Amino acid sequence: MDDRVRSHAEVLVDWSARVEAGDQVVMDVAEGAHDLAVAVAAELGKRDATLLTTYGSSEVSRAFLRAGEDREFAGSDPELAMLEAADVYLRIGGGRNTTAHADVDGDRRMAARKAGTEAREARMATDWVSTVHPTRALAQQAGMAYEEYQDFVYDAVLRDWESLAEEMANMKDILDEGSEVRIEKERTDLTMSIEGRTAVNSAASVAYDSHNLPSGEVFTAPHATEGEVFFDVPMTIDAQRVQDVSLTFEGGEVVDFSAAQGEDAIADVLDTDEGARRLGELGIGMNRGIDRFTDSILFDEKMGDTVHLAVGRAYDACLPEGEAGNDSAVHVDMITDMSEDSRMFVDGEVVQRNGTFRWEDGFEAE
Amino acid sequence: MDDRVRSHAEVLVDWSARVEAGDQVVMDVAEGAHDLAVAVAAELGKRDATLLTTYGSSEVSRAFLRAGEDREFAGSDPELAMLEAADVYLRIGGGRNTTAHADVDGDRRMAARKAGTEAREARMATDWVSTVHPTRALAQQAGMAYEEYQDFVYDAVLRDWESLAEEMANMKDILDEGSEVRIEKERTDLTMSIEGRTAVNSAASVAYDSHNLPSGEVFTAPHATEGEVFFDVPMTIDAQRVQDVSLTFEGGEVVDFSAAQGEDAIADVLDTDEGARRLGELGIGMNRGIDRFTDSILFDEKMGDTVHLAVGRAYDACLPEGEAGNDSAVHVDMITDMSEDSRMFVDGEVVQRNGTFRWEDGFEAE
Repeated sequence: MDDRVRSHAEVLVDWSARVEAGDQVVMDVAEGAHDLAVAVAAELGKRDATLLTTYGSSEVSRAFLRAGEDREFAGSDPELAMLEAADVYLRIGGGRNTTAHADVDGDRRMAARKAGTEAREARMATDWVSTVHPTRALAQQAGMAYEEYQDFVYDAVLRDWESLAEEMANMKDILDEGSEVRIEKERTDLTMSIEGRTAVNSAASVAYDSHNLPSGEVFTAPHATEGEVFFDVPMTIDAQRVQDVSLTFEGGEVVDFSAAQGEDAIADVLDTDEGARRLGELGIGMNRGIDRFTDSILFDEKMGDTVHLAVGRAYDACLPEGEAGNDSAVHVDMITDMSEDSRMFVDGEVVQRNGTFRWEDGFEAE
Repeated sequence: MDDRVRSHAEVLVDWSARVEAGDQVVMDVAEGAHDLAVAVAAELGKRDATLLTTYGSSEVSRAFLRAGEDREFAGSDPELAMLEAADVYLRIGGGRNTTAHADVDGDRRMAARKAGTEAREARMATDWVSTVHPTRALAQQAGMAYEEYQDFVYDAVLRDWESLAEEMANMKDILDEGSEVRIEKERTDLTMSIEGRTAVNSAASVAYDSHNLPSGEVFTAPHATEGEVFFDVPMTIDAQRVQDVSLTFEGGEVVDFSAAQGEDAIADVLDTDEGARRLGELGIGMNRGIDRFTDSILFDEKMGDTVHLAVGRAYDACLPEGEAGNDSAVHVDMITDMSEDSRMFVDGEVVQRNGTFRWEDGFEAE
């Protein structure tokens, strides 16, 4: 077994999920994620946790979802009971075909998702962490060779998370103390209020309220957005390739938009509901182990020297206790490269310039 | 997908598990059993059951069992809660290596098994069925080519179960009404009492208290065994090959034994405890889809025209309500071929002669 698989398992169990003796662990294993599951099982054994392993097979769920006429979807009582008894839930993604559900009817998917609401809430109440084992299917989706993709994943996952968390704390402090963020680059001059909002230091650990491995972003919930922004990182929305999106905001709402490719997909998103035209998230990607777009949001939005904005739903963690943020059925992230000819200001002071943060070597020189 | 995989799934869900709308189903999938799991998921969907899939990976459990020093094994609360909420439990066996646990310490295996007692009892309280998907590893264990083994498995599984159940009812009636069974063949003249015992018609369906697919045997719990018996079907006990076992009974107990190969393994079994020297089961194999020994008890003991006897624990289902049968930590089946030069008598009347039963064509002629 590749040593990096064992290291990945260690990071997942120790840094991310903080598993302790006696923890009741459920691990969900995708079709192609067997090797990482084996490595994680060994780490869980060493820590005297218990283990129940579920099979997150897209082909099994496709067959189940497609079968029969006039289906009624009900939640699984065994799944709910299992999750309610769990302390930790580890989702080991990594399928063998990223389009395995391509021929499942959208209404059925929705009905099944709705039937799973209680189970989902029980899962979110555990110390859950979602990660991914590099598979050939994911390499293909990323447009990469298999070994090349393995290197990419482990560069992103096997970070010095403690020191990255410390570095990201700088960004969180600046955002927590600040009231206005401005982003300036090609075709971009955007101002957002972050007054009264709390930033999340998403350091790939439940100890930081962060549930993805890899992570490496600091995010908050902006409002009162004004100006123009250009997203030069390509993405896929509802199976449509989208490139070079421009959004224009007035009074916090998108009033104009364009895209070099996939403009219809953007239009559909913005038309979903009222909240879909307002921002739900401002995220600052700080994981420099991720240096390229791979068409997977788990990685893309944490890419070092990028900023992403999401139209739609805001996360409660960023809002004052009891206050509701922007509400919407969607949350669609779009990413812009901040590594060159770009600046981010907080309250008029430059925080990031051409990919270098204020606290880093080389910032003053520029 | 091989049509036989779909047929196997149908038999499992309909005939064996009797799944109905609203049933809460847990399906456990071995590493090599993916295709059958997909087919079963479709059948469950058609019947509006719910589905939670667990991953019965020997490599995951090996890694978990071997890890760490001075392990304490505790039961999994999520597993117990899951099973307590389940109506139906389908175990889809079919590993990729039948010796995947070869380097797991026996004491650890035992400790983990003990920790799983509550979960096992909860599983036995469901409508559970255990079956197997043909894999290359199982073909290898059987000493067969892969396609040859697939044919073997489907011949055993895809029976007309309804008519086999009816045929087996003849045997059950004879045993239920009889008081003494005698078996006569080469190196064999054995008499057992079945007075007061009830035979089980094991027709591969929960409706018959039968939990294996394939099945196809009628079994009861004999006592007061006298005489000699010779087992000419080879078997594996504790990873040791055993051949040509002879047992001599006096007063219900084994007083002498020999084997052409693996005599030590037999000695170890018989020395386990007091009950290990007495019979726990007399089984009559009636599945003529199984025509050869494949070193898998799921198949071997149901082979048509064989009889098996087990030393050790008796099944409660064969005993009068509240009465305990032979008790032992072991239950080891040994098989003898009844197809040639052999007779089985109940209360002095021939029931089976040279592989033909009393109710079958050709019986009178011999």
